Amino acid sequence: MKISKIEHLGFAVPSIEEALPYYENILGFTCYNIETVEDQKVKTAFLKVGEVKIELLEPTSPDSPIAKFLEKRGPGFHHIAYAVEDGVSNALEQVEEAGIRLIDKAPRKGAEGLNIAFLHPKTTQGILTELCEK
Amino acid sequence: MKISKIEHLGFAVPSIEEALPYYENILGFTCYNIETVEDQKVKTAFLKVGEVKIELLEPTSPDSPIAKFLEKRGPGFHHIAYAVEDGVSNALEQVEEAGIRLIDKAPRKGAEGLNIAFLHPKTTQGILTELCEK
Repeated sequence: MKISKIEHLGFAVPSIEEALPYYENILGFTCYNIETVEDQKVKTAFLKVGEVKIELLEPTSPDSPIAKFLEKRGPGFHHIAYAVEDGVSNALEQVEEAGIRLIDKAPRKGAEGLNIAFLHPKTTQGILTELCEK
Repeated sequence: MKISKIEHLGFAVPSIEEALPYYENILGFTCYNIETVEDQKVKTAFLKVGEVKIELLEPTSPDSPIAKFLEKRGPGFHHIAYAVEDGVSNALEQVEEAGIRLIDKAPRKGAEGLNIAFLHPKTTQGILTELCEK
């Protein structure tokens, strides 16, 4: 597996509208896209800092995984996504062989049209980890 | 305040020795430095992915802030550090004026000789946030 960079960091927030002034006015980042990922029941807002995106995640329903996360842990860091250069399918095969537990057995479509797959934090040093590619 | 990039991400781990094989052998990053920050009671290991560093944080004493964090939250994301271009002192003044609660009222020396200061997660959308400069 060849990772080129951190593609994005996912931060869970109760409200994108209330979180954006912190990221835009205080940190000085620009939100360039807001989209809803229906099957994940999540609204996402993207900002850029250097080569990395910050993805704010707001639940759109009380049974959204992000709603459950917020209930349990409060707002904050949710996941890290690494950009892989040699294919997510290929990477999943390699990491599974190395003992990593897969949440997604095969790549699926995520926000911004990326092919994505999640690895289980129990086997990734406590960090919910996403692999993605364009 | 002008932020150029994410300088590093701090991940809390019970043991750097046990965490490194995941980051080095599975994700393919290289650990280029291990150092102990005595006054923080923490051992740190640095890896690089793209323009961002990953800082693994292992407690060196049971009363280390990282030991307490691990007890409460388990291993995982601990903080994000942004590189500021126009001085940490200057940035602290600006963010405090904007209502952000400061953990460090003035910059202090962190790992890798950086001038650093932390902002309180209660006022930064749940993310423990560090500002730093060379």
